[in-house]
Amino acid sequence: MSQPNNQSTIFDNIRIVLCQTSHPGNIGSTARAMKTMGFKNLYLVQPDKYPNAQATAMAAGADNVLDNAIVTQTLSEALVGCAFAIGLSARKRYLSHDTVNAREAALQAYEIAPSQPVAFVFGTEMSGLTNAELDCCQLLAMIPANPEYSSLNLAMAVQLVCYELRMCTLEANIHEPSGDAKTMPLATNDDLERFYTHLEETLLHIGYLNPNAPKKLFERMRRLYSRARLEKEEVNLLRGVLTLTQAPRKHTKY
Amino acid sequence: MSQPNNQSTIFDNIRIVLCQTSHPGNIGSTARAMKTMGFKNLYLVQPDKYPNAQATAMAAGADNVLDNAIVTQTLSEALVGCAFAIGLSARKRYLSHDTVNAREAALQAYEIAPSQPVAFVFGTEMSGLTNAELDCCQLLAMIPANPEYSSLNLAMAVQLVCYELRMCTLEANIHEPSGDAKTMPLATNDDLERFYTHLEETLLHIGYLNPNAPKKLFERMRRLYSRARLEKEEVNLLRGVLTLTQAPRKHTKY
Repeated sequence: MSQPNNQSTIFDNIRIVLCQTSHPGNIGSTARAMKTMGFKNLYLVQPDKYPNAQATAMAAGADNVLDNAIVTQTLSEALVGCAFAIGLSARKRYLSHDTVNAREAALQAYEIAPSQPVAFVFGTEMSGLTNAELDCCQLLAMIPANPEYSSLNLAMAVQLVCYELRMCTLEANIHEPSGDAKTMPLATNDDLERFYTHLEETLLHIGYLNPNAPKKLFERMRRLYSRARLEKEEVNLLRGVLTLTQAPRKHTKY
Repeated sequence: MSQPNNQSTIFDNIRIVLCQTSHPGNIGSTARAMKTMGFKNLYLVQPDKYPNAQATAMAAGADNVLDNAIVTQTLSEALVGCAFAIGLSARKRYLSHDTVNAREAALQAYEIAPSQPVAFVFGTEMSGLTNAELDCCQLLAMIPANPEYSSLNLAMAVQLVCYELRMCTLEANIHEPSGDAKTMPLATNDDLERFYTHLEETLLHIGYLNPNAPKKLFERMRRLYSRARLEKEEVNLLRGVLTLTQAPRKHTKY
């Protein structure tokens, strides 16, 4: 897998566990959501209908995740070998558990997953996790949602969690050279100064700047162009415009 | 709306714009995804099938978002009044634009949305944004995905963006608002379009653009200016330069 360096164990050690899912389409969408973020270990605890054509259809190109899903009769079986299990809830209803948001939960999982498996556990579409399921989890995570409508689709919730996990791996790499930096060379400071001189000269030539007090307006122009972070080639394009602006009209390029 | 304190304008000022969506189910899922995160302004540019029963079914309790969706013929219409438009892409394929990840894009939107509308623009399911659509955007945002399978469902992408925006509002409630936000109003999308028309006309007038093939060079000019995120007043300054560039030399300002 072409994951960020040294991160493959983390991607291997995350499990997504769906409990008693009613709609097979959600299982397929979950597989797809997981794969887009680089995850592959899907556990299904007593799914209502599975395998199922609708699940396969919704999985799109993530059928390998679906095909390798492990079906269990209990949540405990799905958690065998896990060092840490995090239950997901849309509402803050379980006073019994430490509750953090999904971002914080992902960070905690990210600390453990390099060495041991970590599970994220999702309840049914209608009512979420039962108390018995929750008792198998060490932490409760909430996705901050609109209090007036917190009805997140199950696969959407999986997508958000997997996204937060992936973001953890990227932020850990943040100081590494990314390799995909813009390749167009930026204009140097002296390129820019020559451009500004040319621009000022041209604005005086066309009578835009007041020769007795050119500074104020011109400073605003400089600021505007400096914000654009001009590339070398763009400075050349702009200077081409300035040259033609100053040229007598008949000597045009075309 | 019971949103976090003083944040209602931000929720009001975000637009989600879907371009030429093929599957009406995705439109419904998008409405639901938006509402779970507290957003409501949905714009549909030339949707394939809309209104549609499947869209309504997938919207679940977010039918009000769907019912109030605004259908337009062009992306420009959907962006009227917007100060900032951010295009979404799964791949880093556009060397021409500044590209940031979705988290950074949400932060940038969050800075502007308290005072002016900001749009997030999503292309078709199959091929994403066209170059012409992208030219209407000032920034390109990428959702970091598995390079081997980056096929994020459209509504999932909307969910992630809306989630990141919501997270901004929550994090802002932890740290105080910075107060050093830019106070100068940014040019709206329509201000910019008028400026670009004026610029193209002027570059043709001075003979800089080849009238038989003006597009290629001009697109680079557009991109350069769109990166600068021009203020309203700066657009006026630049248009003043264009007017004088076209004027006969004797009628100068000074």
